[in-house]
Order: sequence, then structure tokens, then C-alpha cells
Amino acid sequence: MTGKRALDESSITEAVLARFGAAPDPRLRAILQSLISHLHGFVRDVEPTSEEWRGAVDFLARAGRISVDGRHEFILLSDALGISTLVDAINHRARAGATPSTVLGPFYVDDPPVREDGADIADGEEGAPLYVDIEVTALDSRPIPLAKVDVWQSDREGFYDVQHPGEGPHLRARFKTDQAGRLRFWTTAPTAYRIPHDGPVGDMLAAASCHPWRPAHVHFMIEAAGHETLVTHIFLNGDPYLDSDAVFAVKDDLIVDLPLLAPGKGPDGRVIDAPWRWLKYRFVLENASR
Amino acid sequence: MTGKRALDESSITEAVLARFGAAPDPRLRAILQSLISHLHGFVRDVEPTSEEWRGAVDFLARAGRISVDGRHEFILLSDALGISTLVDAINHRARAGATPSTVLGPFYVDDPPVREDGADIADGEEGAPLYVDIEVTALDSRPIPLAKVDVWQSDREGFYDVQHPGEGPHLRARFKTDQAGRLRFWTTAPTAYRIPHDGPVGDMLAAASCHPWRPAHVHFMIEAAGHETLVTHIFLNGDPYLDSDAVFAVKDDLIVDLPLLAPGKGPDGRVIDAPWRWLKYRFVLENASR
Repeated sequence: MTGKRALDESSITEAVLARFGAAPDPRLRAILQSLISHLHGFVRDVEPTSEEWRGAVDFLARAGRISVDGRHEFILLSDALGISTLVDAINHRARAGATPSTVLGPFYVDDPPVREDGADIADGEEGAPLYVDIEVTALDSRPIPLAKVDVWQSDREGFYDVQHPGEGPHLRARFKTDQAGRLRFWTTAPTAYRIPHDGPVGDMLAAASCHPWRPAHVHFMIEAAGHETLVTHIFLNGDPYLDSDAVFAVKDDLIVDLPLLAPGKGPDGRVIDAPWRWLKYRFVLENASR
Repeated sequence: MTGKRALDESSITEAVLARFGAAPDPRLRAILQSLISHLHGFVRDVEPTSEEWRGAVDFLARAGRISVDGRHEFILLSDALGISTLVDAINHRARAGATPSTVLGPFYVDDPPVREDGADIADGEEGAPLYVDIEVTALDSRPIPLAKVDVWQSDREGFYDVQHPGEGPHLRARFKTDQAGRLRFWTTAPTAYRIPHDGPVGDMLAAASCHPWRPAHVHFMIEAAGHETLVTHIFLNGDPYLDSDAVFAVKDDLIVDLPLLAPGKGPDGRVIDAPWRWLKYRFVLENASR
């Protein structure tokens, strides 16, 4: 800085870019330069008052304070602004033939409980039994044995286990596909639910007259050597929120029909005394890019 | 959404803009539309990997978790990226003749302790005594009596009182100007200091090879009926960080010379047994715009 010191509207952005332009790591430098340009562009565009600026700072601080014990308000914010879907799209461009990915969401937990093929992860949860019957293959249709399959979903009240403080893992498991790339387990049909809306993201949606609902779905994260890890959902056809998912994650190829089936004997011989559903799906993994 | 559901790079931004375009409040709508455009633009520009996206979410969550007990990491982030200076510049455009404003910073506390004219707010803090001798006037040079003057500054170790958990207010006070628009009080000369750098903002600066230092300064917030509230600093000339303030807040008009004066009798008759400094400054307030 030379001459008169007094950064103003005409000089501040350039000064900040110059300062961070000295970052030694080229990737960090590129990210910071773009971030600075876009954030300054946003400020120049909306010209926030001092009160609005304080409101924005408070919004972020509230989002941070609420982000404890399995609550990930900044993931929700990214999801609700469509940023997660955009990042996902950018990272999964060439997927012809492969199962589409979609957002991770805020409810994934590392190292879920390992369950065996055929287990019932509903563990007493009420609701229509759901038999999940999937196959994992490569693009060339060859089955992928021993793929790691993480599954998580909401309960019949529309909550994930991590939203019940003090309770353990529920409706969440890690499986492996068998030698034929198959995996079968019992659970309960998920329901549509509202994303956590008692925080700043919920306030933002309410102020913008946007509803917080997501259509019913089961999350899958499938990992296998030699393949890209697939993070996706399976949605239930007929859900009223398929066209207005609060987090912009629905894709037609991920929607399955799950008609109610009559009570009787299930595919694995289990006797079912209530109407139930059968989810059949083939997940096709992309080849690893490296 | 009609036709095939599957928001991708080409359609997601438009879909999110359309969703939030229904926000009933026009100001909120404009802010969200601009935010969405710029954030999506940033993502399209840098194409973050999934790991980088998670890193960004974690950065924000860490910033939030650390924002308790007088720590305002998001204000720091705004300051360190020059956003606070830009917002300040946008909100204080026509200031010919008025004292320049600068950033609020993260250390302001509402309702500081009320002290009387002539008080010594150093309260035993060691360091060169500083006699603050100021006048508050309108643009037409008329003195402004009974202006509310909030003052806050760092101690000789470079910390604000709120950075010492469990301790009360220190080097922080609320005064009123007298009938002649004057205010005089004793304090101790502030020192250059590092902004809190043990959090994500500090990590960002370190990764970018940017230092976290701010030149020595005293904060003022001056409020008077019929005038714009002035939020500003007074900087000490000769400070080594005047040209590289970590938060881009220095303005030449806010820098004062404060030579060390010989021990003896102070301007108010107080006997000073060590070298001391005398800060004389005239603050000129802008007329209220409404």
C-alpha cells in the first residue's frame, strides 16, 4: 500500500486479493481468490446495511452453535441452497450407465454398526416392513462382491437416530455384498420428513416461504475397490414431495415403485403378518478414475 | 420441475433461484438471489472436490463452535477477508469533512461500564499513561454536547478484556462529552496485537502466509442525536503494522502522532512519574441522513 492509506470501495477488493495472492499453495490461492471475488461481489450487489451485516454474522454464529451432537447446520445450509447438489454434479459428470449420485445430507455417521446379510435393522420400529433386495455391479454388469454398503434412514416419525440425543444407532448399518454382489435385509419403510427447521436454516426457509420437507428415502453409500464410491438415495414413488425436495436431491433414476404387498411369506421365508414392501434395485458403480 | 427429475450442473442454479424467488419480502428475496448466484458462481469457478466441500463445512462449523464467550470468529472472518471494510465503505460514502469510520471488530461489548469525565480506565494496567483529550463536533464545527462515547482497547499484552475469561470489563468504558463537546480521560497506550489466531481464521491466515497482526489502536463508537453514529479507531503513528493491518482498517486520517512526553504534571494537574502520551483528536460526525 502506498500513498494515502484508506481502503475504500474502489480499492479494498484489489488489496485483499493482493494480500491472499501470496498464499504459497496454488489450490488454496485459487480458492481464496475466487471466494474473495464472489463474496465482495455479493456485498457490492446487495449493499447490506450495518444491521444486515450483523444479522448475517449472527446467522452464521447461530448455525455454528447449533452444530453439536450430530447436528450439521452448515451441511443443511449447503443442501438448502442447492450447493450440495451442485458440488455433487460437478464431481460426478461422466456417469452414463452408472447409478446417479445425490447429496450426502447431514445425517451420515462414520463407522455404523456392522450387520449381517438378512438382518432386520428395524429392530422393533413399527411401520410397514420393507425388504431391501439389492445388487451391486460394475458398468459391465459384473457383480461386485464384498462391496461395503452403508445404509441410513429416518424412522416412522421422520427422525434419524442422531436426532434422538442419548439413543444409540438405529435404522443405520454397514453391510457387505455377498459373492454374487447381492445384499438383502429387512427394515421399515421411511417416511417423508422435515429437515431440522428449529435453527437458522429453518428460519431462512420460513422467511422465504419455502417448506422444509424431503420425500421419503433410504440413504446408501457404496464403496468397492476399483470403483468410485457411490453416495445416493432411493426414493419412494408417489411421495408428495418428489417435486419440491427441500434439498434439490431427487432424480428419476433413483425413484422406485414400492406397492404394498399382502401379508404372507417373505422372499427369505419370514412370515409377515402385515402389508409389506419389496425394494429391488441394482446399483451400478462407476469405475475408479485413478 | 417438469419432465425428467435430475437437477444437474445446467439446471440446479436456476431451480434454486426459482424456489427462493417466491420469498415474499423483496429485500430478503434480493439478498437470497444474489447469495445463491454468487455462491454457485464460486462453486462453478473452483469446482471443489467432495473432500474440499467437507473441509469448507467443517471450517464453518469450527468457526461456530469457537464463537462463545466474547469470541466472534465470523466477525474475524469478515474482517480478515476485507468484507467488513467493504460493508463499512458502502455504508459511509459521503463523508467529506467527517471523521472516517472503520470496522467494528469482534471485541465490542454492549453497555460498557459508565465512567466519568477525567476517569482513569487503565485501572492499574501497567504501561505508558495515555491522556485522551478529544472533542466531538458536527460538520459545521459546532461542538456536540452529551454525545455518548464508547471506548475499548487492548491491554499491554495485546488482549481485550473479553479474551480473559472470568474477568470483568477492563480498558472499556462509556463516557459522555461535556457541554463543550469535550471529553478527557486517562488510559494506557494500546499495543499492536494478533487477532485471535487459534481458530479456523488463524489457520486460514497461516496457510496463506498472511500475518495476524493489527497496528495499535483505540476503538471509539460515538453516538449523538441528529448525527450518524461513528464507529472508528485511532491508530498510533509509527506502528510497524500500519501498512499490513490484518483486517484492512487503517486510514491515514485516523493515525495520530503520540510522542513520549517527559514525566511531570499532566494537563489535568495529575503528577505523572513516567513518560506519557497525549492523544488530541477532533471527531467530526456526519449529519443523520434521516
